[in-house]
Amino acid sequence: MIIDCHGHYTTAPGAHTAWRDAQLAGGPLPPYPPISDDAIRESIEDSQLRLMRERGVDLTIFSPRASAMGHHFGDEAASTAWTRHCNDLVARVTRLFPANFAGVCQLPQSPGVPIARSVAELRRCVEELGFVGCNLNPDPSGGHWTSPPLTDRSWYPLYEAMVELDVPAMVHVSAVTNANFHATGSHYLNADTTAFMQLLQADLFRDLPGLRLVIPHGGGAVPYHWGRFRGLADMLGRPPLEETLLGNVFFDTCVYHQAGIDLLFEVVPADNILFGSEMVGAVRGIDPRTGHHFDDTRRYVEALDLPADDRAKVYERNARRVYPRLVV
Amino acid sequence: MIIDCHGHYTTAPGAHTAWRDAQLAGGPLPPYPPISDDAIRESIEDSQLRLMRERGVDLTIFSPRASAMGHHFGDEAASTAWTRHCNDLVARVTRLFPANFAGVCQLPQSPGVPIARSVAELRRCVEELGFVGCNLNPDPSGGHWTSPPLTDRSWYPLYEAMVELDVPAMVHVSAVTNANFHATGSHYLNADTTAFMQLLQADLFRDLPGLRLVIPHGGGAVPYHWGRFRGLADMLGRPPLEETLLGNVFFDTCVYHQAGIDLLFEVVPADNILFGSEMVGAVRGIDPRTGHHFDDTRRYVEALDLPADDRAKVYERNARRVYPRLVV
Repeated sequence: MIIDCHGHYTTAPGAHTAWRDAQLAGGPLPPYPPISDDAIRESIEDSQLRLMRERGVDLTIFSPRASAMGHHFGDEAASTAWTRHCNDLVARVTRLFPANFAGVCQLPQSPGVPIARSVAELRRCVEELGFVGCNLNPDPSGGHWTSPPLTDRSWYPLYEAMVELDVPAMVHVSAVTNANFHATGSHYLNADTTAFMQLLQADLFRDLPGLRLVIPHGGGAVPYHWGRFRGLADMLGRPPLEETLLGNVFFDTCVYHQAGIDLLFEVVPADNILFGSEMVGAVRGIDPRTGHHFDDTRRYVEALDLPADDRAKVYERNARRVYPRLVV
Repeated sequence: MIIDCHGHYTTAPGAHTAWRDAQLAGGPLPPYPPISDDAIRESIEDSQLRLMRERGVDLTIFSPRASAMGHHFGDEAASTAWTRHCNDLVARVTRLFPANFAGVCQLPQSPGVPIARSVAELRRCVEELGFVGCNLNPDPSGGHWTSPPLTDRSWYPLYEAMVELDVPAMVHVSAVTNANFHATGSHYLNADTTAFMQLLQADLFRDLPGLRLVIPHGGGAVPYHWGRFRGLADMLGRPPLEETLLGNVFFDTCVYHQAGIDLLFEVVPADNILFGSEMVGAVRGIDPRTGHHFDDTRRYVEALDLPADDRAKVYERNARRVYPRLVV
């Protein structure tokens, strides 16, 4: 079985997105529109599900569109309303396609609002909707980085709930309002690198040994600079990365060329890599060099010729270990 | 001959640093202290120069300490005074060790101050001190990214002077005041990735075909995600990276493990890679896996077994092409 740990509902029906547009525009808020099961089926069957079948992927761990989380828009109430609709829609996908999609929730974060106020939505999604994890935005300000680092105790209320519920978080930012950054071209990758370095500097996992975090997009710049991070840990008097981080931190395979995947598997243990593609996502085209989609990451992983045991870990067992609520 | 394109004067005499401390502390500013030639020789001979000799490096393109540029401290006058002292000190190093060091200047940037006001110092350093390039901080705010992207026309006055003087810039941030970021662990790498993506999105080099920019630290996350950037160029309707960027953008080899250097050379043409180590810099320890310094990047490059022509490009010819004022 092949599990893709990183999919977003980027093809959600237009009525859902239009409601958000109305919400952000201000003025009288229309009721959330009716969206039929057929509209949801249609939005999935010819995009994510078709591509999953073509690529031989059985199950996608599926969350609301990351770039549309937009925690920096509106206030806490707006973020909460939008988040519930997004999560409910993902839950409907998981009920319509229970063999193919497992839910991961967006959190109703809002700049300056304590993360404890996101715990209720996490509980609702896990306990009532059957979700298996959450996406955690380390920068709900949308590129201004006004929250404390992820290792700050102010984040612990969420982490404690995650540990209790036995669900991980993927550390994933959303859109960005600073013109210096391109969301998928730099902000996402920068956030991945930033989060890893924060984790390297502190003792979060000593405090919370049951906490599990997935750093997406192949870990940002981290595997490419693995020697730099090992060396910085040494200079900062921190224990080796393997001891402090690799029991709790995982990377996906959202790296869109063979050389990058080769490097990821060369430096990061197979126990810490979860297959992922983030399709249909940031990069949707076909690579003229290969004739295949850039984000068809299974091809790169297949080309590694991994030992059977590592292959099973990366495609399935690690995902089941990190997301133990997966029941498919 | 082996040229290291990326060295900072991280071992500058204490009196120089103490003057900066006094400047930042406010109060009556003491005169800049006398620093003897012997003090400068001492600061170089047992650190950079010793390591260069041990590693077989002949010449280092040498600039003031990047983390100490601190453009976000004080006002324009403070930045200008500090910058002149830093550049003058580097000039003294180049005069004491003309065979081993060539100067690259810091610019007197200050948040909100037009970059045109940095041109005079660039001219002074190139025309009077014999410098061969400059370091350009894309974020003089120190981690708040309040300047426009590097492709904005507001930066063009500097670029036009660089083209006229035939000197390149290394795009290099300084220290960071936002607790989310670690200077050398995430801010530097993020800035590299950010700058590359900015360049990908615009037509800077169509406007200024003679402009040359070096992106340090192996290009941040870029080579590891080369497929992502190629795919994003495609999605954004931009020409291939090779056409739009690789005539003007160069990466150094400041990647501190073999797998990272292997990847860099696999995806980036040898014409676009300049040997660099950034020693004595961000990572100063010895890798217990190899028994050698993490930043002894020559060992990784040697292990590639490059064709002689590529080797000559990476070690010397590219540096002479990018920094044509090099005369050693």
